[in-house]
Amino acid sequence: LKVLNCEYGKNTIKFLRLHREGKKHFVKEVEVCTHLRLTSAHEYLDGNNSLVIPTDTIKNIVLVLAKKNGIPTLEQFAIDICKHFMTTFCQVAYVKTYVQEVPWQRLHENGVPHIHSFICVPDGIRFCEAEQCRNGPLVVFAGIKDLKLMKTTQSGFEGFFKNEHTTLPERHDRILCGELFCKWSYGECKDFDFDCIWNKIRECILEAFSGPPDCGEYSPSYQKTVNSIQMLVLSKVSQVIETVLNNTFYNVVDMKNLGLTNDKEVSKCSKHNLPGLFRHTQP
Amino acid sequence: LKVLNCEYGKNTIKFLRLHREGKKHFVKEVEVCTHLRLTSAHEYLDGNNSLVIPTDTIKNIVLVLAKKNGIPTLEQFAIDICKHFMTTFCQVAYVKTYVQEVPWQRLHENGVPHIHSFICVPDGIRFCEAEQCRNGPLVVFAGIKDLKLMKTTQSGFEGFFKNEHTTLPERHDRILCGELFCKWSYGECKDFDFDCIWNKIRECILEAFSGPPDCGEYSPSYQKTVNSIQMLVLSKVSQVIETVLNNTFYNVVDMKNLGLTNDKEVSKCSKHNLPGLFRHTQP
Amino acid sequence: LKVLNCEYGKNTIKFLRLHREGKKHFVKEVEVCTHLRLTSAHEYLDGNNSLVIPTDTIKNIVLVLAKKNGIPTLEQFAIDICKHFMTTFCQVAYVKTYVQEVPWQRLHENGVPHIHSFICVPDGIRFCEAEQCRNGPLVVFAGIKDLKLMKTTQSGFEGFFKNEHTTLPERHDRILCGELFCKWSYGECKDFDFDCIWNKIRECILEAFSGPPDCGEYSPSYQKTVNSIQMLVLSKVSQVIETVLNNTFYNVVDMKNLGLTNDKEVSKCSKHNLPGLFRHTQP
Amino acid sequence: LKVLNCEYGKNTIKFLRLHREGKKHFVKEVEVCTHLRLTSAHEYLDGNNSLVIPTDTIKNIVLVLAKKNGIPTLEQFAIDICKHFMTTFCQVAYVKTYVQEVPWQRLHENGVPHIHSFICVPDGIRFCEAEQCRNGPLVVFAGIKDLKLMKTTQSGFEGFFKNEHTTLPERHDRILCGELFCKWSYGECKDFDFDCIWNKIRECILEAFSGPPDCGEYSPSYQKTVNSIQMLVLSKVSQVIETVLNNTFYNVVDMKNLGLTNDKEVSKCSKHNLPGLFRHTQP
Repeated sequence: LKVLNCEYGKNTIKFLRLHREGKKHFVKEVEVCTHLRLTSAHEYLDGNNSLVIPTDTIKNIVLVLAKKNGIPTLEQFAIDICKHFMTTFCQVAYVKTYVQEVPWQRLHENGVPHIHSFICVPDGIRFCEAEQCRNGPLVVFAGIKDLKLMKTTQSGFEGFFKNEHTTLPERHDRILCGELFCKWSYGECKDFDFDCIWNKIRECILEAFSGPPDCGEYSPSYQKTVNSIQMLVLSKVSQVIETVLNNTFYNVVDMKNLGLTNDKEVSKCSKHNLPGLFRHTQP
Repeated sequence: LKVLNCEYGKNTIKFLRLHREGKKHFVKEVEVCTHLRLTSAHEYLDGNNSLVIPTDTIKNIVLVLAKKNGIPTLEQFAIDICKHFMTTFCQVAYVKTYVQEVPWQRLHENGVPHIHSFICVPDGIRFCEAEQCRNGPLVVFAGIKDLKLMKTTQSGFEGFFKNEHTTLPERHDRILCGELFCKWSYGECKDFDFDCIWNKIRECILEAFSGPPDCGEYSPSYQKTVNSIQMLVLSKVSQVIETVLNNTFYNVVDMKNLGLTNDKEVSKCSKHNLPGLFRHTQP
Repeated sequence: LKVLNCEYGKNTIKFLRLHREGKKHFVKEVEVCTHLRLTSAHEYLDGNNSLVIPTDTIKNIVLVLAKKNGIPTLEQFAIDICKHFMTTFCQVAYVKTYVQEVPWQRLHENGVPHIHSFICVPDGIRFCEAEQCRNGPLVVFAGIKDLKLMKTTQSGFEGFFKNEHTTLPERHDRILCGELFCKWSYGECKDFDFDCIWNKIRECILEAFSGPPDCGEYSPSYQKTVNSIQMLVLSKVSQVIETVLNNTFYNVVDMKNLGLTNDKEVSKCSKHNLPGLFRHTQP
Repeated sequence: LKVLNCEYGKNTIKFLRLHREGKKHFVKEVEVCTHLRLTSAHEYLDGNNSLVIPTDTIKNIVLVLAKKNGIPTLEQFAIDICKHFMTTFCQVAYVKTYVQEVPWQRLHENGVPHIHSFICVPDGIRFCEAEQCRNGPLVVFAGIKDLKLMKTTQSGFEGFFKNEHTTLPERHDRILCGELFCKWSYGECKDFDFDCIWNKIRECILEAFSGPPDCGEYSPSYQKTVNSIQMLVLSKVSQVIETVLNNTFYNVVDMKNLGLTNDKEVSKCSKHNLPGLFRHTQP
């Protein structure tokens, strides 16, 4: 008798870890998901729970690890969690942990950093994942999501395939706008400076999207820009898992019937090309 | 040079198809995603767009097929779309289509069906997928999502694994509540009565979750209930891809310090155990 | 020294009240907001909290009242809460309570009602409000929201004001679709059968929107339909506070450049005309 | 015969205004709502549309004004819109316009500003409103919303009212966290430097919330902090309409039964105290 999906776990362990150095405070608020697969599936087939680690216990363990070890980096914390489950519970066949950061930044008043006040600045969300099968390597991924970028020129889309269903005009000067998602792998876990690499990759992405500050760089398509981003990220890490720029289309408003010539000054955002609908599948 | 994710497409082609039989109207409002992979990846590597079918053209094709063929069933419509792309464009290596229904139901006034008025009743959303690789079979999936169910007794969780991080008490009478997601495969596409099977599976799910109307059936765990649902669904189709019941936990409010004995009469919904965070990956 | 907004309270007291009659279970899951204004404002001006009833205490009181009295109707529960605060705390100058229902319905299997299983069916959300100033009357409001309705014909919009900025064509056969919000007052609180009236008003709304089941009724504008709904609701209660039908516009897709004549068979939903943005103001 | 709510309009006119100075680009993406009340209500009562300005025309006018005048400031744009409707249409008795900004910021690469690339940084959303009755003054409001702030100490809540329903402990060192909303009035419209004042008020809010960067300032309650913010804002404008800090409560996790002493290092965010539910009322 087959059990199809026997991964289970706790999905929204959200908490704040406060670290104090004298009067100076440091915060890390994270949202953690930890999923397990067990070596047997008796709980599914027979209702025998004797090997099941309750999701409530999973939550407790995550909180205890945060209390004991702190959260030096998101990635190290995800590694700690996976290692704990693999070494503590022999019935665990597979563990996966996802950690996402709430983007708190230290407040500054006239350039002076505040010792205990913070502001939420969601201009790209940092996340990571770690996973391990029993007797397999611990693999670490990281990424950035919800990074919204726009360039108002140096973008076009021409020379595409045409047939009787084509109505899109060719354009050599359009707005390119989208929400970027990029996820990469560090390969088997070694000692990385996760914070430093993450920050460098974020800079790479901004640079590959926008080009030099004084002139930009022409993008002949969404696809080419995605590939440029990937190439630049690959120069920093061993593997890029996925890069997506969820386009937001801006159409120049036709004002001819209103008696006006609109030289791309007024554009309307059409529906976002969200990735949502295929994504209903579980991990 | 590797291109990692060269699937692209249109994600939110949302429209209403109106069908008229005399004065009686029938509506189907759907949201369609259609993704493609091409045989080459020159657009990613060189910015050569000559084989790229613009997402605008993809949208036009979906609308034209809806106009010409109607939407007899969601599944047949997804099949039509896949077949069109595979037979029309030799540069398409892979096509996938997702179709989701907006749950309009005919209005009834005192039991009489209205000829052209409808009400939106989202008690479980129907969706389907079809996909095909060049020279491969066309495979059809279907499913239900966002189906929220609750039973207020005949559910427990006992005899689970315990250690120093366990704080969860054993319970033999708790509320079981969750949002159900179930996706199955029809295998290689043959002639099915998709509407009839979908409705039967929905009934199976309700029955397996709740048990007989006069007494219910005891659930020893979330896992056992998920498996019961799967077994019953499997009796109707060739394969169950995935069944998830995203638990919502209800905790009985402790009223001792308020001088009251709460016999499970007042419960608070704790955080939903949403599947969201692992799901950031693209198709 | 003026204090501008000294209303405070607890906004999301969400809980489930289970009522048992033998083996048959009844559930009411509600979300409650209770706001207060105090007779003085020393907590705002001087940081003197001695009269402040903590929002945590407000929450406890709401839960205790649910435990002791049950929730016979939403409206009676809102009345109970207001009365409790007004009679218990002499420092309360004003109290307002909002109660909204999670739309659980009893499951039926082949027409047989299940004794303890429920399904969530959000086809219009029931809510109510009660408010009272010290020495003033207790006033009760109720309403329905998020009720999505559509008629595919018997709707038009013609003869409107035109000038050089007009581009909308006249239409005598369009789709009318929207999300209905309706709120009414029962006036000063007397003995009403709140459940019965609410159900009758819901029927009135459906009837006024859609007209007779065999032919419908022509709507010359959004405004006229809103007024028809109001008139019918007014026949049941003393006062209609507000009726809004947040239109969703469906535009017939122009398929001329795709070589097809679209006889209103394929329409696209344009942006919803959501009421959201003006609504940022607090109670 | 009374018509209760005869305000109507267009709620989501979202567009991007691009301004070019040589090769340097400036963007303003806004979401505009414009509502009207007409001098008569025949469209509601009789279905006579002859004075109704269609919402489609309202949208066209907003776009035309953006094209012709640009968007020098949000406030000036809202004023322009109100003036246009009041002077052009004698059937308009009242006009109100809301404008909200999408927070695009110019990208910087190594400190160098990019000529045409932007990043979305939503750390507080700017909005404004203008309204006018025929023969009345044009009044301008502005505000900030969705500004999330946190201080990890220098906050407490003590000495509050207690009775048998009180379970909240007194605390002199807690986390204060919330989402700030502040709206003020410029009074009758004169020549203000709207951008400059808005930026100064934002600084005031941060300062009043957090206190001096080297030590902070003790907050004895949510209420006192809200009042401090208001007093500081009042020093810049004629009137504060409303200030709300929608608390997010952080509770220190009790780890005693896990054998650990938690010195406020690990906290869990309980439910947000969202303002949402009372807000269902239309403008």
